[in-house]
Amino acid sequence: MGEFDIIREFFSPKTTRAILGVGDDCALLQIPPHSQLAISSDMLVCGRHFFPDIDPEDIGYKALAVNLSDLAACGARPISFTLALALPNINHTWLKRFSQGLLSLADLHDCELIGGDTTCGPLNICISIFGEIPNNQALLRSGARIDDDLYVSGNLGDANLALRTLLNGRPIKDATLAACRKLLNRPTPRVQLGIALRTIATAAIDLSDGFLGDGQHLLNASNVGAMIDSNALLSCMQTKSSEDLCDDTRIECILSGGDDYELLFTAPVKQRAAVLHAAQISQTPVTRIGHITPTNCMALSGDYATLDLKKITSFDHFFKT
Amino acid sequence: MGEFDIIREFFSPKTTRAILGVGDDCALLQIPPHSQLAISSDMLVCGRHFFPDIDPEDIGYKALAVNLSDLAACGARPISFTLALALPNINHTWLKRFSQGLLSLADLHDCELIGGDTTCGPLNICISIFGEIPNNQALLRSGARIDDDLYVSGNLGDANLALRTLLNGRPIKDATLAACRKLLNRPTPRVQLGIALRTIATAAIDLSDGFLGDGQHLLNASNVGAMIDSNALLSCMQTKSSEDLCDDTRIECILSGGDDYELLFTAPVKQRAAVLHAAQISQTPVTRIGHITPTNCMALSGDYATLDLKKITSFDHFFKT
Repeated sequence: MGEFDIIREFFSPKTTRAILGVGDDCALLQIPPHSQLAISSDMLVCGRHFFPDIDPEDIGYKALAVNLSDLAACGARPISFTLALALPNINHTWLKRFSQGLLSLADLHDCELIGGDTTCGPLNICISIFGEIPNNQALLRSGARIDDDLYVSGNLGDANLALRTLLNGRPIKDATLAACRKLLNRPTPRVQLGIALRTIATAAIDLSDGFLGDGQHLLNASNVGAMIDSNALLSCMQTKSSEDLCDDTRIECILSGGDDYELLFTAPVKQRAAVLHAAQISQTPVTRIGHITPTNCMALSGDYATLDLKKITSFDHFFKT
Repeated sequence: MGEFDIIREFFSPKTTRAILGVGDDCALLQIPPHSQLAISSDMLVCGRHFFPDIDPEDIGYKALAVNLSDLAACGARPISFTLALALPNINHTWLKRFSQGLLSLADLHDCELIGGDTTCGPLNICISIFGEIPNNQALLRSGARIDDDLYVSGNLGDANLALRTLLNGRPIKDATLAACRKLLNRPTPRVQLGIALRTIATAAIDLSDGFLGDGQHLLNASNVGAMIDSNALLSCMQTKSSEDLCDDTRIECILSGGDDYELLFTAPVKQRAAVLHAAQISQTPVTRIGHITPTNCMALSGDYATLDLKKITSFDHFFKT
C-alpha cells in the first residue's frame, strides 16, 4: 500500500461544497459574497500532544477538534480542512480508526476534507482549517472593553487533571480519571457558541494552553486587565473537591493547565440576556467569571484572591510536557 | 525562548493584504469577487524530503517553493500561507536562516505568512498555501484532450541526479553535482508560467514525484494517453551526457526521479504561439515533448522508444528514500 492508496482508501470523502476536493494539485473553494475566510493551522506531535498509546480514533477526533476550536473562537462557520500526515509505517487498523475519528467529527460540523499530504516520518498530524464569517463580524482577541463581563464556556481544568494523573500517577478515583480523560481526548469545539456570539461578544479566545496564559493573550491584545472570581472559576471544573483532590490542585489545573478548548470571551454588561440566549441556542454551558478592568493584568477575587499568579506558568510547547 | 518568542522574532512579518495575520486564533482573508481560492498543503520531513545537514535557508526556501509549485500548477496567484513547524530544539541560528529562506521567497511572490503553529518534536515543516484564481480558470489535471500538445517547463532529472549522487556516491564531477544540487535544494516554482497559461493550457500538473508517476496522474485524470519523444525529454535535462553519465541514467533520472517542480501541461495545437508567448512573458523555458493520444497509457518515441516503462517506478513517500 503506497501514498496514493492511503489517500484513496481513507482520506477521499466526497465533497459537495468545495469546487474541487482531494486529487488535484490544489483544492478549490468559492467563498460566499460579503464573507471573510478564517484560517487556522495546528500541528499535533506524538508524545507531545497525545500519548503514544491513545486510541487512534481519539487522535483523529482531537486533531480536528483543536482546529475547529480556533474557528469557534473567531465565530467562523467551518467549511473545510486539509490534512497533512506523517506516519512511521502503514497500519491499516490505525488508519481506519484515525480516519473514523477525524471524519465523523468533520461530518458533524459539515466540514469537508479537501486535500493534504501523506508522507513517511515520525507521527505528526497537521490540519489547516477554513471557515467563513460575514464581513467584520469575526471575534478577535483585541475587542475587550473596560467593564465588559468575562465568560467562559464548559469545563476548565479537568483535561489537565487527567494529564497530570497520567503523567505523575496522582491517586484519583478511576471513574474520575475516566471522566477527565474523556475531556482531554475528546474536547467539544464550541463552534455553535462562537457563531451565536458573533454580534454579542466583544472579544474571544480559545483556551488551549491554559486559562492564565491564554487569558493574558486576550488582555494584552485588548490592552486591559481583568478581575476574576476564583470561586466562579472553581465552579467550572467538572471534578469537584474530594479527599483525593483539594481546591489548591483544582485551581492550579484550571489556571496553568491546558487542553480545555473552551471559549473565554467578553461582552458588554447590557448583553447578559443575549449571552444567556447564545448559550441556550448553542446548548453550551457558559459561566460569568469576572469583568474587565483598566489595570492591564489579571487579578483574582474570592477564596484565592491572594494567590500569586506570577508563580503559575502556562503551557509552552517547548518547556513542559 | 518559548513558543511565542519564536513566533514574534522569526515568523511575524507585517501583512498588508490579509485582513488579519499572525497573532489571533485565526487569520482572516478577503477573497476578491469572481475569484476562487486555491489551497494546497505539503509536509516536509527531515531525512525524507531533505538531508539533515542541508542549509536551513534552503529548507525554508524549499518548503515554500513546493507549495508555490502546487499553486502554479493550477494557475493560481499566491496570496498567503500558514507555517506549522515542529522543532527538536530551539536553535537561533537555524531559525534565523530558515526564516530568511522562507520569507525571502515569500516576498518574491508577494505571499504573506498569516499564521501557523510552533511546537517541539522531530523536525517537520507543514505549509498550507492559498492562492486566487478567476472563476473557472483553474488548470486541472483532467482537461487534456486527444491531439493536444504536451509541454514541460525548465529542467528535468537534474535534481534526481543530485539526490542519487548524494545517496549512492555516483562519480560525477563536483561542478555538475553543485549545479544539480542547486536545482534539488532551490527549485523555481513556475508561478508566473502557471498564471500565463490560465486560458491557454487544457491541463497541468507539477512534477514533484517524477515525470512518469505524475504524468500518469494527469493522463488518468483526463482519461487519455500520451506519446512522448524521449529525445525531447533528454533535452530537458541540464546535465548532458558525458563519460561519467550515460543517457540510460539520464532518462531514468527524468522518468523515475522527483523534485523537479516543473509544470507538465497540455494545450491545443492551435495554441502553440500562445504557449510560446506565455513562456516568454514568464521568462520560463518550455519544451514541447509530445502529444496526447487516446490509448490511456504513456508511450515513448525516439531513442528510448523500446524502453519498458513498467519497470520504472515513481517516487512514493512510503517506499523509497
